[in-house]
Amino acid sequence: MRVLIVGGVAGGASCAARLRRLSEAAEIIVFERGPYASFANCGLPYYVGDVIKEEKHLLVATPELFRDRFNIAVRTNTEVTAIHPETNRIELRDRQSGAETEEAYDALVLSPGAKPIRPPIPGVDLDGVFTVRTIPDSRRMRDWIQQTGARQAVIVGGGYIGLEMTENLVERGLGVTIVELQSQLMPILDPEMVEPLQAVVSRKGARVLLNDRATRFEPADGHRLRVQLGSGTAIETDLVVLAVGVKPEVELAVAAGLKLGSRGGIQVDDRMRTSVANIWAVGDAVEVLSPITGLSGPVPLAGPANRQGRIAADVIMGRDSRFRGVQGTAIVGLFGLALAATGPGEKLLRREGLWDGPLQCEKIYLHPGHHASYYPGASMLSFKLIFSKRDGRILGAQAVGKDGVDKRIDVIAMAIQKEATVFDLEEAELCYAPQFGAAKDPINMAGMIAANVLRGDSVLLHHEDLAATDAFILDVREPGEFRRGHIDGAVNIPLHQLRGRLDELPRDREIWAYCFVGQRSYYAARMLLQLGFRVRNLSGGFRTFSLQELVQSRQGAKT
Amino acid sequence: MRVLIVGGVAGGASCAARLRRLSEAAEIIVFERGPYASFANCGLPYYVGDVIKEEKHLLVATPELFRDRFNIAVRTNTEVTAIHPETNRIELRDRQSGAETEEAYDALVLSPGAKPIRPPIPGVDLDGVFTVRTIPDSRRMRDWIQQTGARQAVIVGGGYIGLEMTENLVERGLGVTIVELQSQLMPILDPEMVEPLQAVVSRKGARVLLNDRATRFEPADGHRLRVQLGSGTAIETDLVVLAVGVKPEVELAVAAGLKLGSRGGIQVDDRMRTSVANIWAVGDAVEVLSPITGLSGPVPLAGPANRQGRIAADVIMGRDSRFRGVQGTAIVGLFGLALAATGPGEKLLRREGLWDGPLQCEKIYLHPGHHASYYPGASMLSFKLIFSKRDGRILGAQAVGKDGVDKRIDVIAMAIQKEATVFDLEEAELCYAPQFGAAKDPINMAGMIAANVLRGDSVLLHHEDLAATDAFILDVREPGEFRRGHIDGAVNIPLHQLRGRLDELPRDREIWAYCFVGQRSYYAARMLLQLGFRVRNLSGGFRTFSLQELVQSRQGAKT
Repeated sequence: MRVLIVGGVAGGASCAARLRRLSEAAEIIVFERGPYASFANCGLPYYVGDVIKEEKHLLVATPELFRDRFNIAVRTNTEVTAIHPETNRIELRDRQSGAETEEAYDALVLSPGAKPIRPPIPGVDLDGVFTVRTIPDSRRMRDWIQQTGARQAVIVGGGYIGLEMTENLVERGLGVTIVELQSQLMPILDPEMVEPLQAVVSRKGARVLLNDRATRFEPADGHRLRVQLGSGTAIETDLVVLAVGVKPEVELAVAAGLKLGSRGGIQVDDRMRTSVANIWAVGDAVEVLSPITGLSGPVPLAGPANRQGRIAADVIMGRDSRFRGVQGTAIVGLFGLALAATGPGEKLLRREGLWDGPLQCEKIYLHPGHHASYYPGASMLSFKLIFSKRDGRILGAQAVGKDGVDKRIDVIAMAIQKEATVFDLEEAELCYAPQFGAAKDPINMAGMIAANVLRGDSVLLHHEDLAATDAFILDVREPGEFRRGHIDGAVNIPLHQLRGRLDELPRDREIWAYCFVGQRSYYAARMLLQLGFRVRNLSGGFRTFSLQELVQSRQGAKT
Repeated sequence: MRVLIVGGVAGGASCAARLRRLSEAAEIIVFERGPYASFANCGLPYYVGDVIKEEKHLLVATPELFRDRFNIAVRTNTEVTAIHPETNRIELRDRQSGAETEEAYDALVLSPGAKPIRPPIPGVDLDGVFTVRTIPDSRRMRDWIQQTGARQAVIVGGGYIGLEMTENLVERGLGVTIVELQSQLMPILDPEMVEPLQAVVSRKGARVLLNDRATRFEPADGHRLRVQLGSGTAIETDLVVLAVGVKPEVELAVAAGLKLGSRGGIQVDDRMRTSVANIWAVGDAVEVLSPITGLSGPVPLAGPANRQGRIAADVIMGRDSRFRGVQGTAIVGLFGLALAATGPGEKLLRREGLWDGPLQCEKIYLHPGHHASYYPGASMLSFKLIFSKRDGRILGAQAVGKDGVDKRIDVIAMAIQKEATVFDLEEAELCYAPQFGAAKDPINMAGMIAANVLRGDSVLLHHEDLAATDAFILDVREPGEFRRGHIDGAVNIPLHQLRGRLDELPRDREIWAYCFVGQRSYYAARMLLQLGFRVRNLSGGFRTFSLQELVQSRQGAKT
């Protein structure tokens, strides 16, 4: 058995190592176009930022380790230029000598990855315009920063890589401007959950230009560049980082006649088999299915790539392993804040017409402390849970805060994997000591709030409902809180006075209650519902309302 | 509807608040023997340690808040002295005035909690001998420390409270001696997982006396005490903390004819109903069922107590809520280390005869970094997973380390709740950025290691198997590692030399391979198995072996 693997990072490397564990006899050769085999892609921004000081720390496994430990040949600087499925052969070119050769395979695994999108903007190939995908990319950027004494950077794109580069360049002392086409950072997530990042970026002195795009890069004095924006602004800078996303490397696959999926990635089945016999594909280049939405597309994440590599190896060796798809768990850290998600967000579900469709989505917000409030150091966690009104099944969650974000999203990730419902979250039994959690953990709270909705104990309203209403808006916070800011037209009756002031409430129209995070107004709503009032409760309270007001003003700025 | 609640902490308070949310009309009265209603029990050690500086921070809800927010009457300093189920009445005594009264109920909820065990040791009632269960307890201890200028403390009992008190008193500058009857700290958990705590306690200068007990407390000079130990040692100290566990407060329930369970707690069904009509019971006083082992007993944890209170309220108000039992998720922090568990441990399973019984238990150990090793600051997490060999179902997990312990145990807690298998852990999709996790998270690694066992890809061995064997012990680490310590009789062949030195391995007996944590030896074992050798792999490697050697020496010290 002779297995050839194209691409030695993440999926390819995992596949190779797993193959050896399943077969001592197989001949396994990995071809890697770049100078390195398995390296830590996700560490590159931190290498540019000098948080990771040495290149060698990024090398997960060297060709020598593959050889000595696994008896696997890794040929770096070797490009696969063609696949011939009819003869089970590939063509190769040594990128240093230019020599061209061929190799035969019994099984071929494609793990070509994805490449950074380089938008067709004039000047995109100038010196000083960088992408962050490989170690040499990152080394060049490090060198450039040092040699030019760079003080300023423009980052095009406000997604994962754009934000990680922002943190790293700011911490290195550079002034950073982020240019983002959409009206929010992290366009893949829901805008109100991203707002706290916007705030921390500004506090750190970085500039964020939303609803804007780079239209031209021009040389300026010395090594410097001028970035022309669609809005008409021009920015002079020492370097530009392109971080507008990646696209699957499919040229080789297409040339070999492999089918692509609807979103441009290589089509595979749940055994990672492509449309062509004896060829598997894994990692950022393939399309994967979401077990939640049923949608397919490329999802460039290291964890799934590694698992796909294992599964391809299993299947090649005759085992019946299946890939369960990608639910989309991801996290980004930014200046001490973390923003994480698992499952689809509201923005995606609405865009795909799934929000009000068969999934019958509902959402709740909460803003609990990340641990017991009586223990010093509790910080606020903002949490959004999306679930199906049909059966309470959890569909997705997003959270942002200083601490405990990854923990809660990981618990929800496991819950989604096991098709748990919000009722399961109510009953979850999680670690509690005051420095780690709470007797009612944010996970329990989320479950309780959502279950209250499903049981009809609580009727929610959201920011978007407030646009046009003649409801009586009731603010049950304390007068001091009300004075510091409230919803236009709201009437303030503090919760503890409510039972004595019922005659101030209307019985002929709905009462829309809110407080700061939604807890006191839930108590108020329960009381009033039982007394015959018609009441709804603003999910996430004034805190979520304020975030959504900010989102709305940014979206308004676009038009 | 008139609902009386006996005990206003955790379960009782949750029940009262939930009742009001379900019924605005019900009359709800809470009777609390102590001076406070709902307070943060779990914060008391940190209040003694002055981490929590003010008593008011411990008050979750005051009687005033109950009255104003929920229209619930809380009568503090009021003891319920008798229950008359035949007439649905209770007798009360005001602890300040001594006045005795009666109240009628439609529903009665008992939430009396548990009280610290005070072993019948001579001198146990002397001044300077403290327990940590109430705010007054803790205030007295704070005052005592300050007034006597205490420099030394003896803590009797090395469980949760004993260790939290150790941390807090050491951080306050006291010299601490822990006296523990068993041969390990945290006797409820598995000894090898507790070893790292033992090390950190010693590093902090606290003394741990295992296999020993306090037999007498005597007055010494001034305010001081002399603690006589079973071993013959005597220790002079400024104060003694009794932390040898709690027992359910059942006197009132027993007098009223309520049935107890086999372990001395109040017997309840899954709707929190006692054996007597119209009486419910919740919290530390009741026996709960483990959904994993089927065993029942009292489990004093705040999270379950709160959920039980909610469920009792639901059932009283005619809803069909059920309590799913307690899986036993808990955590303790100690000088920057955390030790957490969910589900039963090996010690408990063996003691109850369940290890080799129908559950068919197996265990694996791993010691991964808490996040990607290439990002600075990764610390080692030691992790033990217990699962059923029958179907891979996860039964329990324990973890210890500096960071990320609570997160992994919470994920496993959710997995256990949803009856997940080790195969699910392999495929879990968790947050990964280098500062938060790894492309293969410790959770994935645990799943892969366990699944390898179930699929027959890996045959494990454990420390206990090494006692009597004629197997060939193969150490595949580097020579430097071998020199710093190895298993007696082991032969060192580094992994990367193994393919070239096969002739040094026996074919007529088993090869037992190990490395530092079990990964390299797994690679070795896979290779050798395929080459026809009979191989087993030491789970957790030399790291787990060393912990278990320490455990063995402590257990040996007992006999």
